[in-house]
Amino acid sequence: MISFYNDYSEGAHERILDALIRTNRVQTSGYGEDEYCEEAKTFIRRHLRKPGTEIHFLVGGTQTNTTVIASILKPWQGVIAADTGHIAVHESGAIEATGHKVLTLPHTEGKINAEQIERLVRAHYDSESFEHQVQPGMVYISQPTEYGAIYSKAELKAISTICHKFHLPLFIDGARLGTALVCAENDTTMADLEELADVFYIGGTKNGALFGEAVVVSSPELMPCFRYMIKQKGGMLAKGRLLGIQFAELFRDDLYFDLARHAVELAQKLQQGIAELGYSFMLHSPTNQIFPIFPDELIHQLEDKYACSYWDWGRADPQRSITRIVTSWATNPESVNAFLADLKQLTEK
Amino acid sequence: MISFYNDYSEGAHERILDALIRTNRVQTSGYGEDEYCEEAKTFIRRHLRKPGTEIHFLVGGTQTNTTVIASILKPWQGVIAADTGHIAVHESGAIEATGHKVLTLPHTEGKINAEQIERLVRAHYDSESFEHQVQPGMVYISQPTEYGAIYSKAELKAISTICHKFHLPLFIDGARLGTALVCAENDTTMADLEELADVFYIGGTKNGALFGEAVVVSSPELMPCFRYMIKQKGGMLAKGRLLGIQFAELFRDDLYFDLARHAVELAQKLQQGIAELGYSFMLHSPTNQIFPIFPDELIHQLEDKYACSYWDWGRADPQRSITRIVTSWATNPESVNAFLADLKQLTEK
Amino acid sequence: MISFYNDYSEGAHERILDALIRTNRVQTSGYGEDEYCEEAKTFIRRHLRKPGTEIHFLVGGTQTNTTVIASILKPWQGVIAADTGHIAVHESGAIEATGHKVLTLPHTEGKINAEQIERLVRAHYDSESFEHQVQPGMVYISQPTEYGAIYSKAELKAISTICHKFHLPLFIDGARLGTALVCAENDTTMADLEELADVFYIGGTKNGALFGEAVVVSSPELMPCFRYMIKQKGGMLAKGRLLGIQFAELFRDDLYFDLARHAVELAQKLQQGIAELGYSFMLHSPTNQIFPIFPDELIHQLEDKYACSYWDWGRADPQRSITRIVTSWATNPESVNAFLADLKQLTEK
Amino acid sequence: MISFYNDYSEGAHERILDALIRTNRVQTSGYGEDEYCEEAKTFIRRHLRKPGTEIHFLVGGTQTNTTVIASILKPWQGVIAADTGHIAVHESGAIEATGHKVLTLPHTEGKINAEQIERLVRAHYDSESFEHQVQPGMVYISQPTEYGAIYSKAELKAISTICHKFHLPLFIDGARLGTALVCAENDTTMADLEELADVFYIGGTKNGALFGEAVVVSSPELMPCFRYMIKQKGGMLAKGRLLGIQFAELFRDDLYFDLARHAVELAQKLQQGIAELGYSFMLHSPTNQIFPIFPDELIHQLEDKYACSYWDWGRADPQRSITRIVTSWATNPESVNAFLADLKQLTEK
Repeated sequence: MISFYNDYSEGAHERILDALIRTNRVQTSGYGEDEYCEEAKTFIRRHLRKPGTEIHFLVGGTQTNTTVIASILKPWQGVIAADTGHIAVHESGAIEATGHKVLTLPHTEGKINAEQIERLVRAHYDSESFEHQVQPGMVYISQPTEYGAIYSKAELKAISTICHKFHLPLFIDGARLGTALVCAENDTTMADLEELADVFYIGGTKNGALFGEAVVVSSPELMPCFRYMIKQKGGMLAKGRLLGIQFAELFRDDLYFDLARHAVELAQKLQQGIAELGYSFMLHSPTNQIFPIFPDELIHQLEDKYACSYWDWGRADPQRSITRIVTSWATNPESVNAFLADLKQLTEK
Repeated sequence: MISFYNDYSEGAHERILDALIRTNRVQTSGYGEDEYCEEAKTFIRRHLRKPGTEIHFLVGGTQTNTTVIASILKPWQGVIAADTGHIAVHESGAIEATGHKVLTLPHTEGKINAEQIERLVRAHYDSESFEHQVQPGMVYISQPTEYGAIYSKAELKAISTICHKFHLPLFIDGARLGTALVCAENDTTMADLEELADVFYIGGTKNGALFGEAVVVSSPELMPCFRYMIKQKGGMLAKGRLLGIQFAELFRDDLYFDLARHAVELAQKLQQGIAELGYSFMLHSPTNQIFPIFPDELIHQLEDKYACSYWDWGRADPQRSITRIVTSWATNPESVNAFLADLKQLTEK
Repeated sequence: MISFYNDYSEGAHERILDALIRTNRVQTSGYGEDEYCEEAKTFIRRHLRKPGTEIHFLVGGTQTNTTVIASILKPWQGVIAADTGHIAVHESGAIEATGHKVLTLPHTEGKINAEQIERLVRAHYDSESFEHQVQPGMVYISQPTEYGAIYSKAELKAISTICHKFHLPLFIDGARLGTALVCAENDTTMADLEELADVFYIGGTKNGALFGEAVVVSSPELMPCFRYMIKQKGGMLAKGRLLGIQFAELFRDDLYFDLARHAVELAQKLQQGIAELGYSFMLHSPTNQIFPIFPDELIHQLEDKYACSYWDWGRADPQRSITRIVTSWATNPESVNAFLADLKQLTEK
Repeated sequence: MISFYNDYSEGAHERILDALIRTNRVQTSGYGEDEYCEEAKTFIRRHLRKPGTEIHFLVGGTQTNTTVIASILKPWQGVIAADTGHIAVHESGAIEATGHKVLTLPHTEGKINAEQIERLVRAHYDSESFEHQVQPGMVYISQPTEYGAIYSKAELKAISTICHKFHLPLFIDGARLGTALVCAENDTTMADLEELADVFYIGGTKNGALFGEAVVVSSPELMPCFRYMIKQKGGMLAKGRLLGIQFAELFRDDLYFDLARHAVELAQKLQQGIAELGYSFMLHSPTNQIFPIFPDELIHQLEDKYACSYWDWGRADPQRSITRIVTSWATNPESVNAFLADLKQLTEK
């Protein structure tokens, strides 16, 4: 059984495990105040430009989203997001549990745009009962989106401009940021994100780490006591060193990007191969998640050997389903070849 | 520099690292639904008796406390705890952030007793304005306490009885549970805790794991949708397997207890050695944290070579301070010998 | 200037003021435990059937919605509502501030139906990642809706049946309940609501009281310590007698229904008169809010003399707007006549 | 039966009822944006000095405390208060329900002092694990205290100075502010409070209004969107005019102070008369709550005719109890005379 189910099915890249072993008996301070965290920050800063930017390490994505958003928003504010945003649909109400509404906008390939944001904000303040509504307080987007698409630099600039205009902090969820940064369509660097967003995070969990997300805060005045919040929200790992060791390894010599490149290349190979066999897609994805539309009969045949997930069963049409195929830093190229070969055979049958 | 600062200064026991390496490329389901978590549960269940008991794995202690307490309490309820309880003083207001007051009782060696709980509950319902006060909703205790002391089985039974009488779920924080279970004074088993408490947890972070806490829920009807809450509170690790692999290793053949025994033996050796040199203690601790009272001058001399923490500086008397010395699964016996030798020399000077 | 802007533009029906004066110097217990509250409950109970039903008095609508919903939901649950529901759009995020998501469904005239609820619940549990989503925990509907429409008994029964099937408490917002109960289309009694819902409220603020909402809890086991919650959420009036005195007067001899009838009759007169002049409506409303669509030019002429509110300016078409006209227990019949006469003149010009 | 149980046993001063009747059919805007609220603000401003000070009207005390505190605190902060503070003990956990801990200090006559606050704040920042604790975020005091005592201007200045030093907003609960301002010991004006505090409120409920508290915000930059919060927390009365009409009447010609004076004079008469009969007191109170210590036998005899409340039964000594006697704007002087006469007779028997 080969799994294309997600990009967190395996452990971690072996260099990370080696680093853990190498450092295992060194005694360090707890809670992220150790020398490995400092080293990791130094390596990450090579990709950044602003001297005042802060870096913090948290354990997982939902935790990171919740902690950042709860740190920034005022109690009468909500966060603007795509209706497909992870915070809107897949975090068990974590944002609401901190007291805040997610103000959703209809998405395009998981994206929202500057015009939508401006319309929502203007509609709020134009309303005569605006004080009876949740005040838009910040903007959350994902790069890449939950559907694998990416924002261009121009799109990000437009969003950033509108956010500044309305004093809305911009937060970019980078759970799969690596795959966006290395994909062919991309024209944005990490330093661009630092410039355009107030805070974003570099996902480790889905790109070769055991776990961990590096939060890059380029507007630290928006979240001045963030470490209290990391602790309060359960994200302050006692052995914070584990995060430092992992991110140091990922950014020592750009392993992070190599791993993302591996995932993207294999996904693109699958996307192209599937397209050549005549299948259509929910969208063209440039990153490591692809969404072919397969006949249900074919899906049943594939299921014996390959684990994928199936979305909106029946939405495309009653006989076909959207299939989500995800590759990762750990995906074996032979698995991709095998899948394409099997698909070819099943298609031609 | 040798650190007795805490029991999370090192990585993990090497057998755990080996297990991570061994399983690294196996593909599993995410979010704790993998075979390693199942295996770990099977091993832990050997120490339990009730068929209906559930086991869940979370990442850290603050997160575990918050998620359990927020799952059990009704919105008009608070949690009873010692005024020294971790949730009362060292979690950045995590409990309050979920909407609940911590109802504190004065401690003795970090412990509270059944009579105190009964008095608090009776006082609540005897008050004519009881509906204007926070309703006591559950009881939180730590085994061992934050001061290293342990509850006897008789004390736990008395607390459990009062809790049942007043329909107060009992939750035991076992961040250092191993050290309580193996110490000389102990007369309580894990199955006793399962019987007496509604939920407790087995701390991994402070006993040889990289991280992780195993929550044992013997009254699952009190927290029926706990996995939603783990996700909402940011404790559902994408690579949940990491928790399963670690706890499987810790409980496969009682490594967990061996590691705790190591820590306790070295702490007790230190406690005895320090006592023999004529120093007094804040309390006699049977576990892996000890609290000698040292002259400040001595402390300054020790600080060059040993990292400890110093509590309530000046409280004992203006010239002496309470010193917290913590040993762990990783403490080198030679470090203990060196400390005692140095202390002897400094004392006799 | 005549206001049709809302139904809380005036003070209270004079009989209520008389009752306040009459009882003014009587000393009573505070916080709703006085004899007037008891009397009011006795009068309201005449319209109910279940012996176990509880009645509580709160000050306002947002407060009532928030306190009821926060009392019922578990921390991992959300409340299903129409996307036009008051809790979804006009309460400044009050529900989210208690930690809960509002799970919205598209409305028809402000209503949702049993099929929509069933689909939402089934979709939740059919999802493989259901634990990563907010669990549907209860249903909120408004009778009449925010658009003046009412649910038929058959519609309410269907919703109630689905709610029971999925163990979802049903809560009916009755901010304008009087107008639903007395309108021509209505086939539902207060006792029917008691039977079909788990909790509903009888709005006083918008039907002749100075303020106040009577919460009827027919499933008190769902909110066992509701008075703690009323206090916590700031709804427990020190001089609770004020609520008792008002509701006693409203229900002593059905003044409540007389006042609602007055409002509905005048609104219907307006609706018919406006229709006869050839204008269309956003919907046909049987209650005290009507929604004619007027040319913008006409609106500008009316604005000098009449205060109404204008919705979705320009949505109907660029030259016309939806106008909300609200009558109340205090509306002067002559105001209605004057409006219709002026409208006729302006229309025929 | 005569009640000295509290100061909210009656309705409202008749001038307030007259004003409600007089204005009853005038149509106004809702939610506090009417001309009566403006008028009331104008009258209150006569007692203030700063042009930027904002005034808002809320319904009740718990609601006011919760809304103000939740508007000011950051999510990682708590509010410092006396352990007897209303927010610490009598609001059903309202503050915690908004996510914040109440950081209590031991009281003296219900008061805390500047030194205590400074010690708490210094201890927080001196702690090496300060980020693991709740950050002190503001200070709450009551004038008069829950025990009837008042702060002198010097005490308030010292607290205000320390608050400024540590950037802690100061909030004064004035549920019974009138009685503090008019009592013999007082040396503080409303303008002093405006100067020394960042926000305080003028209690109406306990001083002759049906209900209502006027919040005076002299540092509006600390709570920039307060009206959103009033709405969210259920304090925005639809018929906001009711608050305006009442406070306009109370402050049109200082009725507010006359009513407070009435209450204080009668309480002081009681206090003096009781002292002359040889009884001692929990404390000497200058305001409208007094706390004589009576033998339990005497209490049983008084209970037939007078309603008081009894605190800490048995604490003073097993045979005597602290009795709380409260007078109000509505207390009949003859009730006071009758009580003193009966007490004399019972004492001399």
